[in-house]
Amino acid sequence: MSEIALSAVATRLGGDMARVRAVIDAVHPAVDGGRFPIKRVAGEPVQVTVHAFCDGHDVLRVLLRWGAEDEAALQEVEMQPRGNDEWTAEFTPPVPGRYRYTAVAWVDHFRSWRHELQRRVEPADIRIAVQMGARLAAEAAARGTGAERQALANWSEKLQRLSAEGEPGALKTLALDEAMAELMDRHADRRLCASHALELPLLAERERARFSSWYECFPRSTAPEPGRHGTLRDVEARLPYIAGMGFDVLYFPPIHPIGRMQRKGRNNSLAAEPGDVGSPWAIGAFEGGHKDILPELGTLEDFQRLVAQARARGIEIAMDIAFQCAPDHPYVKAHPQWFRWRPDGSVQYAENPPKKYQDIYPFDFETEDWRALWRELKSVFEYWIAQGVAIFRVDNPHTKSFAFWEWCVTELKRLHPEVIFLSEAFTRPKVMHRLAKLGYSQSYTYFTWRHTKAELQDYFTELSQGPGREYFRPNVWPNTPDILNEQLHGGRRAMFVSRLVLASTLAASYGIYGPAYELLEGRPRAPDSEEYLDSEKYQLRHWNLDAPDSLAPLIARLNRVRRDHPALHADWSLRFLPTDNDQLIAYAKRSPDGRDVVMCVVNLDPHNVQSGWVELDAKLLGVEPDLPFQVHDLLGDQRYTWQGSRAFVILDPKQLPAHVLHVRRHARDERDFDTFR
Amino acid sequence: MSEIALSAVATRLGGDMARVRAVIDAVHPAVDGGRFPIKRVAGEPVQVTVHAFCDGHDVLRVLLRWGAEDEAALQEVEMQPRGNDEWTAEFTPPVPGRYRYTAVAWVDHFRSWRHELQRRVEPADIRIAVQMGARLAAEAAARGTGAERQALANWSEKLQRLSAEGEPGALKTLALDEAMAELMDRHADRRLCASHALELPLLAERERARFSSWYECFPRSTAPEPGRHGTLRDVEARLPYIAGMGFDVLYFPPIHPIGRMQRKGRNNSLAAEPGDVGSPWAIGAFEGGHKDILPELGTLEDFQRLVAQARARGIEIAMDIAFQCAPDHPYVKAHPQWFRWRPDGSVQYAENPPKKYQDIYPFDFETEDWRALWRELKSVFEYWIAQGVAIFRVDNPHTKSFAFWEWCVTELKRLHPEVIFLSEAFTRPKVMHRLAKLGYSQSYTYFTWRHTKAELQDYFTELSQGPGREYFRPNVWPNTPDILNEQLHGGRRAMFVSRLVLASTLAASYGIYGPAYELLEGRPRAPDSEEYLDSEKYQLRHWNLDAPDSLAPLIARLNRVRRDHPALHADWSLRFLPTDNDQLIAYAKRSPDGRDVVMCVVNLDPHNVQSGWVELDAKLLGVEPDLPFQVHDLLGDQRYTWQGSRAFVILDPKQLPAHVLHVRRHARDERDFDTFR
Repeated sequence: MSEIALSAVATRLGGDMARVRAVIDAVHPAVDGGRFPIKRVAGEPVQVTVHAFCDGHDVLRVLLRWGAEDEAALQEVEMQPRGNDEWTAEFTPPVPGRYRYTAVAWVDHFRSWRHELQRRVEPADIRIAVQMGARLAAEAAARGTGAERQALANWSEKLQRLSAEGEPGALKTLALDEAMAELMDRHADRRLCASHALELPLLAERERARFSSWYECFPRSTAPEPGRHGTLRDVEARLPYIAGMGFDVLYFPPIHPIGRMQRKGRNNSLAAEPGDVGSPWAIGAFEGGHKDILPELGTLEDFQRLVAQARARGIEIAMDIAFQCAPDHPYVKAHPQWFRWRPDGSVQYAENPPKKYQDIYPFDFETEDWRALWRELKSVFEYWIAQGVAIFRVDNPHTKSFAFWEWCVTELKRLHPEVIFLSEAFTRPKVMHRLAKLGYSQSYTYFTWRHTKAELQDYFTELSQGPGREYFRPNVWPNTPDILNEQLHGGRRAMFVSRLVLASTLAASYGIYGPAYELLEGRPRAPDSEEYLDSEKYQLRHWNLDAPDSLAPLIARLNRVRRDHPALHADWSLRFLPTDNDQLIAYAKRSPDGRDVVMCVVNLDPHNVQSGWVELDAKLLGVEPDLPFQVHDLLGDQRYTWQGSRAFVILDPKQLPAHVLHVRRHARDERDFDTFR
Repeated sequence: MSEIALSAVATRLGGDMARVRAVIDAVHPAVDGGRFPIKRVAGEPVQVTVHAFCDGHDVLRVLLRWGAEDEAALQEVEMQPRGNDEWTAEFTPPVPGRYRYTAVAWVDHFRSWRHELQRRVEPADIRIAVQMGARLAAEAAARGTGAERQALANWSEKLQRLSAEGEPGALKTLALDEAMAELMDRHADRRLCASHALELPLLAERERARFSSWYECFPRSTAPEPGRHGTLRDVEARLPYIAGMGFDVLYFPPIHPIGRMQRKGRNNSLAAEPGDVGSPWAIGAFEGGHKDILPELGTLEDFQRLVAQARARGIEIAMDIAFQCAPDHPYVKAHPQWFRWRPDGSVQYAENPPKKYQDIYPFDFETEDWRALWRELKSVFEYWIAQGVAIFRVDNPHTKSFAFWEWCVTELKRLHPEVIFLSEAFTRPKVMHRLAKLGYSQSYTYFTWRHTKAELQDYFTELSQGPGREYFRPNVWPNTPDILNEQLHGGRRAMFVSRLVLASTLAASYGIYGPAYELLEGRPRAPDSEEYLDSEKYQLRHWNLDAPDSLAPLIARLNRVRRDHPALHADWSLRFLPTDNDQLIAYAKRSPDGRDVVMCVVNLDPHNVQSGWVELDAKLLGVEPDLPFQVHDLLGDQRYTWQGSRAFVILDPKQLPAHVLHVRRHARDERDFDTFR
């Protein structure tokens, strides 16, 4: 058996690769051992750490290897040791797409020899070492070509010639020549090179996958006059309002024809009245399905025009993709094999407990006709991508098969690397994480249900520092058409403001469902319900955008702050600062170059003035511990000068329940007295 | 491309496996994604946790699958959900050897149907559901045989027949029949079954791999009279002394012929004097090499007899395997290609910085003749295994190639699963961990250099709770022939006792180098040296075992306590208890069944009486928070009754600097007043 195993080792290691002494024990980051890609943004450096070592005390060389997924050749970057057998280097994926990275390492006899020689003092030792160096240089010359080959050969010959007679000090200097060492490094003996077993995948996306401000609204409720069904033209007219608030993603619920069979009435009633418009998520009717537009909203041309108009204002239109059918969706007749039929000839309607969707049939992802189903569903994305859509919010992806999503999202991103997918899965943590792992760019979160300081700190520490950050990008929403959280019941302005500030500063991507949010809509269908009363899901609504207490100006200010401050463009730098009052939450974020620092303090109590001390961490805030520094409240436009390890903060919910502070370091030049930069 | 990818998915998933909706996201424990085995002890349960879920809200079934590495068929154990999509089950490897484990999961339509039916109340819903159940039962019948097939078919027929007319309540009862449900479970439809991508390896060893008490001594120093070279017969005569102290592993430095070329003199001097015995690690001379015994020690027959005599006293002999050669080792002439020759015809001697071994040549693991080298080295183990040795302490394994060790240890354990390997690598953490991962049963640790309460708590928390515990089993030594730590300089008894108690109770495996340790030998070669003065590594020593201050009686007591208390037989249960005095360290361990609890308090200050409060954790100690309980000091044979959340402790280094307390719960039966169990 041991003979067999010996030859098995030889085979596994490629014959003489059993002689390889370098070990690559780990390459980080990696998600599930390389089963899924890490996520980054194109144009930004990816830091890689490799655990590598060899037996004994020889010197190792370690190279990071990386390239696009479909490039045959990988680029190499020399990795630097940072102690404890960890090696680091970085690379920058230039454009969105899939990449791979791995590492190689070998025991470098030249570097080992050079390290040895440096500590030699005995003339006899130096002479032997120089002879060995001559041998190594001759071998390197044999691997080189042209002038470099000649230079190495000359150096080898010189070392050999002088080794017996030369003065030891001069010999050592010649042997330690820096330029020759560099040449030797370029012609290293890599025959016994260890390769990491895996090439790890990386998904590089465009910046908006990491930093985005979403606004959701129902096109049918955008008519300027009450009672009329809004149209895509009405949405176009509303673009200045939305752009004025500073959003860069405008997201619509499904805009497709709505089923008439089992149509829901107002307030989710089971029987629709004549004239009831039904739920946009009950997709499909005789007018068409997922590739069609509800005639009342307008035409495909209207849609294309809206996409273009929005883009001109810096706004991208995001589509809701909900893979499910009203009973009268054309798919149901054309592809009955895509649904699971019961003995009585019915299909069990969809549920997402406790919610029941009597107006919706789910697809059967166990259908034997899965190839046709998968192709058709992917073609829905392709159809809208062709109309100019590059962001999709996917409805309840956790009720469709994971194998389908992995294939669909991966394939779409291969051809369209710019496309961004938001996973609308409010479900158990491992399920949400799996969707993020398999390719979703952004994910909904539990922010809506995290209210206290401890809850928020724990959750956002996990999101920004936990292992899931390699693939799970949060997109946080204080409300959605489905979620009027009890905190917002009653429409208390201070609460709406504090949740807005938290969402927009804790996370680089956030969104609101409006105009319900900016107009402080807080009426639930029942006291313990998270559903809106008179929800737009089942009826038209008319909103008074000119209401004097609208949050629109504050939202505009917040989104301006977000745009102006790179500290708020990413999630990982978030750190919480201790306060001595549990109603006051404090945190700071900084830009990758450390030059922009934003610190926030939010009063979580909508009823009472709260005050307390915030512990300042000079290193975190990027200030000198001994010098005063200025903080500029970007919401209230106040300036404060702070010094020392604590700052006193008082926040009145009747005024503004939050500080969003730009931290301005003291200019250390005395000639520039009292200025801050 | 997407067409290609679609068929690639189909191929990868085995055709219709794209229809599989169950997902296995993770199987724990696993080391480096299954690259290396977890380690356990045969006969003890292995707990496995699987992260598994499916899209939507159907019911999953998850099975753990496990078996010996070379068994074709795996056994299956139904896993139980414990919330958060985690499933657990356990299995017990019956005998030492290699095993594998993995998991499968599927969406179970019968269980999903049954779950649905349970909440149905509408008669129409119940009738449809019962019809569906009849269909599922008919399908299950088709998968069954014999009587079970008939029972399922009958049940199906009955459900179908009664579904239209039967009284809904009775119908539901019939459909929810428990016995039929069990039968259905046994004939589940597993066609769309997800398998974890990996079969994870497990290395099951015998109990001594986890729990062992080592005693190291130099056979050549065991002569009863001073000045004579000790023999294996002298060691035999010393067995009662060693068995009396309660050790179960007796370990010798190499017992092979010692080289004469470059032989070291006393106190590591470069020039040996006539009569100097040399270092046992400078292996090989004209008398032979790694498979021979130094003639002065005796014969192979003496060795075999010693092994048998030791075994009769419950002691196993452990051999030191040091793969290196004195310059006059027979290998050097017979296999010059196994060494790296310099231009002057010399071999660079071995080093383990800062130590230099001028009397030792290292092997060149990059030799092109690696196959012969590997085979020969493995045959050294095989030779000694044939002589009855089943425990090897491997010298400096980190200076030999990792690829070699992985092959050698794995192959040896395949044929000899009872063999235990201890890695003597005092080096950087990742290197030590790699050796443990690739198969070493036990590993030396940094215990020797961890002195303060904070250092000890951090280090042993890492060892007992960190991810490395899956494969890294610590074996802790307060001293070795190479390490007389500065704490032991001067031979202060209280320090020797406290380090001994720490070693023997913090870790399930520990060892001492004696008689130096029990005789309080604390003379270093230089004030800042960790080398012993007049070290046995280079000369004979004579020890007075009858010294009145010998620690032998205390060691005997400690090893008895270790043997009697299952709490001390494993590492993972270790938990530290807070004290209000940094010179007092407190911790507790418990047996897997929770019935045996041992708590220790050690005074780390050898000079002063120290006292303070220990915080008691009732749950950890397995006592009732409101009742008094007794602690019995197994060293001092004192008993104390404690109650509440704190206990006062005072320890005088001049007496005993440690409590080793057996925690005795109060008997909760009032009739048994004042007794403890």
